[in-house]
Amino acid sequence: MMTRPAAPGLRVRKWDAGRWSEAPDAVVTEEPLQLMLDGEPLSVVMRTPGQDIELALGLFYAEGIARSLDAIKSLRISAESGESDPGIHVDASIVESNHIDVRMATRPPRKPERSMLASSACGVCGAVMIEDLRRDLAKLQDGPSVDAALLPRLVERLRSGQGVFERTGGLHAAGLFTASGEEICVREDVGRHNAVDKVVGRMLLEGRLPARDAILVVSGRAGYEIVQKAITAGIAVVAAVGAPSSLAVALAREFGQTLVGFLRGERFNVYSAPERLTR
Amino acid sequence: MMTRPAAPGLRVRKWDAGRWSEAPDAVVTEEPLQLMLDGEPLSVVMRTPGQDIELALGLFYAEGIARSLDAIKSLRISAESGESDPGIHVDASIVESNHIDVRMATRPPRKPERSMLASSACGVCGAVMIEDLRRDLAKLQDGPSVDAALLPRLVERLRSGQGVFERTGGLHAAGLFTASGEEICVREDVGRHNAVDKVVGRMLLEGRLPARDAILVVSGRAGYEIVQKAITAGIAVVAAVGAPSSLAVALAREFGQTLVGFLRGERFNVYSAPERLTR
Repeated sequence: MMTRPAAPGLRVRKWDAGRWSEAPDAVVTEEPLQLMLDGEPLSVVMRTPGQDIELALGLFYAEGIARSLDAIKSLRISAESGESDPGIHVDASIVESNHIDVRMATRPPRKPERSMLASSACGVCGAVMIEDLRRDLAKLQDGPSVDAALLPRLVERLRSGQGVFERTGGLHAAGLFTASGEEICVREDVGRHNAVDKVVGRMLLEGRLPARDAILVVSGRAGYEIVQKAITAGIAVVAAVGAPSSLAVALAREFGQTLVGFLRGERFNVYSAPERLTR
Repeated sequence: MMTRPAAPGLRVRKWDAGRWSEAPDAVVTEEPLQLMLDGEPLSVVMRTPGQDIELALGLFYAEGIARSLDAIKSLRISAESGESDPGIHVDASIVESNHIDVRMATRPPRKPERSMLASSACGVCGAVMIEDLRRDLAKLQDGPSVDAALLPRLVERLRSGQGVFERTGGLHAAGLFTASGEEICVREDVGRHNAVDKVVGRMLLEGRLPARDAILVVSGRAGYEIVQKAITAGIAVVAAVGAPSSLAVALAREFGQTLVGFLRGERFNVYSAPERLTR
């Protein structure tokens, strides 16, 4: 269950210009993950199984629930059976509010009753009011200098690691790379926000946050939440295969993040802070 | 603000195989919508402005907060200014719990403190436990008989209504059609779940739910939430341009919904209940 990114083959009926056929098909696995915080249900995340601890850590990081490993008392993953049970649980326990990484989070940690609810494609989750998000982010300083011609290569590297996508057409990917193009971490998920959370969670586990010198490449669109998660993790360069949204552009400009969109073939658009891209 | 699907032109730097240029560009508008329920903040939804009442109604419907217009005491939209204010509010007031459409919703209405939090691409929102979702859905009976050759035409009709997509590449669409191919309602949004919520909200406003004889066509993927929202609205045929997920297929099969994926050109796959598609 937990390391199976594609569901077992199922038979589907195929229509092709008036002709029916039947064939096996693979679909991407989407399953609920129950997040518990201090014994209380916090959220159900719809995600592709695998790297669930990273996903939980990345979500906790993005939401300001835990901005360092020190803020986490325990983190336990368990599977339960039974029809009324959602299956896989992550049980987290965090230290008292005033210990939660006050260096990075200025807002108070979220109370469980202000429940964070995330889906496979959910990012604002946990921030009931927009001003919370704004207060939470710091302007990005410095960041890497990146050869513009490198960016198309990074998408190729992201795609080459996406075996499941090839078979199912249903997975998003997020990859973190160095300014010289080395892969730091690539993760896949049915939800594009989850893929970013898994990458950020991995960096938190490795003590590499904020990831100031890294480039984040995402296979989908760049909405507000993707940009927000990247700014929170200190990532100064974000490149998306898909379109950015108006709020993503506004946020990137406000916080000095280099935001690239429509990164396809040898082309892309730069929506903010182009000075980090050289050549 | 509220009827502007694309943000005003902004200048971007464009890279094309080694050459830089500068040009105006349009991006899709994404802005927060604050939902208030009985005076308490319920959720911030990241959405493309326009049809905000429909969006709120569709979300309330999907989440079981209000399954009929009778369940809503008042619904008011307002704009406020000020830096600490998220902008557009929808203030809703619902009738007491035991009056909420017990014909359709078997679970108790959600308490505000079990807060629903939605993003531009969030659908599970509001259901903390998966079993809530399962308990909430009824098996689809009957439904329309649809000529398989009609489905590709419906995507063309969906696309032809997407003027903003043409300019920004950033909008999802959801359309409801009759079994003979007539357009009932098409809505666009930066979030694919929002587009479906707007369609369902429109149907609720018009007293046309459950929409048993309609076909829902979506421009993106068919994840669990899209299928769940459609089942909740009584829609027996769902066709997606993108890939379905494993859970979407499982849910469609469990509830007898016809689920079509990869609807591109003259081709598509049928993942469940193919008997509604004729020819």
